[in-house]
Amino acid sequence: MVKMNEVIANIKPLNEKAMAEARARQDNLTKPQGSLGQLESLSIQIAGIKGNSRPQIAHKVIFTLAGDHGVTEEGVSAYPSEVTPQMVYNFLRGGAGINVLARHVGARVVVSDLGVGSVLERHPDLKDKKVAMGTRNMTKGPAMSREEALRSIEAGIELVEEELSKGMDILGTGDMGIGNTTPSSAITAVITGADVALATGRGTGLDNEGLKRKVETIKKALDINRPDPKDPIDVLSKVGGFEIGGIAGVILAGARYRIPVVIDGFISGAAALIATSLASQVKPYLIAAHQSVEQGHKIILEYLGLKPLLNLDLRLGEGTGAALGIFLVEASLKVLNEMATFAEAGVSEKIDEN
Amino acid sequence: MVKMNEVIANIKPLNEKAMAEARARQDNLTKPQGSLGQLESLSIQIAGIKGNSRPQIAHKVIFTLAGDHGVTEEGVSAYPSEVTPQMVYNFLRGGAGINVLARHVGARVVVSDLGVGSVLERHPDLKDKKVAMGTRNMTKGPAMSREEALRSIEAGIELVEEELSKGMDILGTGDMGIGNTTPSSAITAVITGADVALATGRGTGLDNEGLKRKVETIKKALDINRPDPKDPIDVLSKVGGFEIGGIAGVILAGARYRIPVVIDGFISGAAALIATSLASQVKPYLIAAHQSVEQGHKIILEYLGLKPLLNLDLRLGEGTGAALGIFLVEASLKVLNEMATFAEAGVSEKIDEN
Repeated sequence: MVKMNEVIANIKPLNEKAMAEARARQDNLTKPQGSLGQLESLSIQIAGIKGNSRPQIAHKVIFTLAGDHGVTEEGVSAYPSEVTPQMVYNFLRGGAGINVLARHVGARVVVSDLGVGSVLERHPDLKDKKVAMGTRNMTKGPAMSREEALRSIEAGIELVEEELSKGMDILGTGDMGIGNTTPSSAITAVITGADVALATGRGTGLDNEGLKRKVETIKKALDINRPDPKDPIDVLSKVGGFEIGGIAGVILAGARYRIPVVIDGFISGAAALIATSLASQVKPYLIAAHQSVEQGHKIILEYLGLKPLLNLDLRLGEGTGAALGIFLVEASLKVLNEMATFAEAGVSEKIDEN
Repeated sequence: MVKMNEVIANIKPLNEKAMAEARARQDNLTKPQGSLGQLESLSIQIAGIKGNSRPQIAHKVIFTLAGDHGVTEEGVSAYPSEVTPQMVYNFLRGGAGINVLARHVGARVVVSDLGVGSVLERHPDLKDKKVAMGTRNMTKGPAMSREEALRSIEAGIELVEEELSKGMDILGTGDMGIGNTTPSSAITAVITGADVALATGRGTGLDNEGLKRKVETIKKALDINRPDPKDPIDVLSKVGGFEIGGIAGVILAGARYRIPVVIDGFISGAAALIATSLASQVKPYLIAAHQSVEQGHKIILEYLGLKPLLNLDLRLGEGTGAALGIFLVEASLKVLNEMATFAEAGVSEKIDEN
């Protein structure tokens, strides 16, 4: 709690001077002003985050956090919970989607157990931040205690702090947790006020019957727990997940240390709702990598006022969308740093129409 | 003409067997089926193009073709025509947007003069395919002769053929030509049947007055020339451009040599309309990199049935969107080739819901 409050107290606004300088440079590069669209605005945002009008990215880190969910007892996922630890081992061996895409963009993946429901074998690349052996079934009471919710957020902060010394110019968030679209939909409904049915999608591939059951399950959990929309720790503890709390902590720490935070899809979006409810000054540090297929994600992005960079019908999680987003941020900075100006290239500027 | 017809006659359908094998592999990788969305479908398309269920990409080439437009006399562009050759020199020095983004994705840029309105200095990296010193003003008659239109297409084919020996696993298209959204809008209106006003946007940054003038200019050109929508060479010659014809040739040759063709924005899209009107069997070889701000581009993509990979409010051209698209195609193939299968990773598969 002390750590979380300290981190939040140290999240500062973006540097307006660096942004103005970056914008001025973009307007002098050999292209019509604004013609590189979001690549231009991204580069200006990063300049503001880093307080540097010509920022560069060398070290890229994706945090992939895993946790299990007691609510899977209700039949809300198309895959069994045993897949969570199996996929953690897949991450550690380098065979998962996130490994492939992180390699493609030159990012390292930090894998952490925030609350997998079984004891994982030790591995030099696995960060043990286990809060508990999975959440409890939220249809029967709170998914976790308030203390556990805070612990999960602080674990996420620790993960970022432990990696800082290795270099981190940008970070991406990612998740693994069978059943975790269910708490994410619940969080979305509570914090944004959206209807549960609108905030709930098919996850890894539920059929119509399964989707109906999932909506009923979430409604039941909200009825029993009555989370307070004004208290994000209450929401996280009653209907959240450990990896979601951990990602919220990663997001807070990213903003605290002025590191651009590329958020992945729906689960990371739910974590961003928790983080921004705790500290609205986090928002300018966020970059939405993509628009997930999961329908609640659109509600989150609209609520946060974020325009996603990609819309590729992804719904895998793990940080796969974030990896692709990191590539685009890097592209935006190369444009800012490497393109010639009109003066340098001897190119004529726009005709004055007045 | 002979060359073009030979190329068209040799464009074959995609390889269904390779696509089925790639699809089967995607369905066995450690992720819910379909959860990587367009990255999955892209990899299957490339397998079909290359006739190889595990295709790889090493050599990436972006063709950036330049030409000038007599119609700029009518005040349809916010920049003077002298910018076309100035930007060609910028490409050759590596200072333009396309150079930066091509380096970012590891592609080489082939720059060619298809019809710049001035004599360019020789340069070892500049391919001279000049058909004429810019098109004629299409409001006063055809932009070029039928022979010149054919010559521009064949020049594009030659560019691809000349690069084949250096290796080319994927190609992107790009353009440079002050005023070239005007012929592109004209081509779009003629071939898709769309209203001129709907097919016409602000290009590099026209104000309302300029946009109105541009629409009137295109209407006048169509009235005077009456291009035949069923005859793409007639359309290209009457209201097209040399770089547009060249790009159409690049597209045809890409399909002929079974090279995935990543088309850039609006100008490349207009060239794709010409190419697919000449040979509809080109379509499965096309990948739409992005959705341009230029409003006619949406009409083109819908007409061609293509879903763009990116929507970043780009409107620069040069092949900048294509470069980013090439990166995503490469990502899709790494997923296909490098991810572990369920069996390899010891991960449980989906629960049978029946």
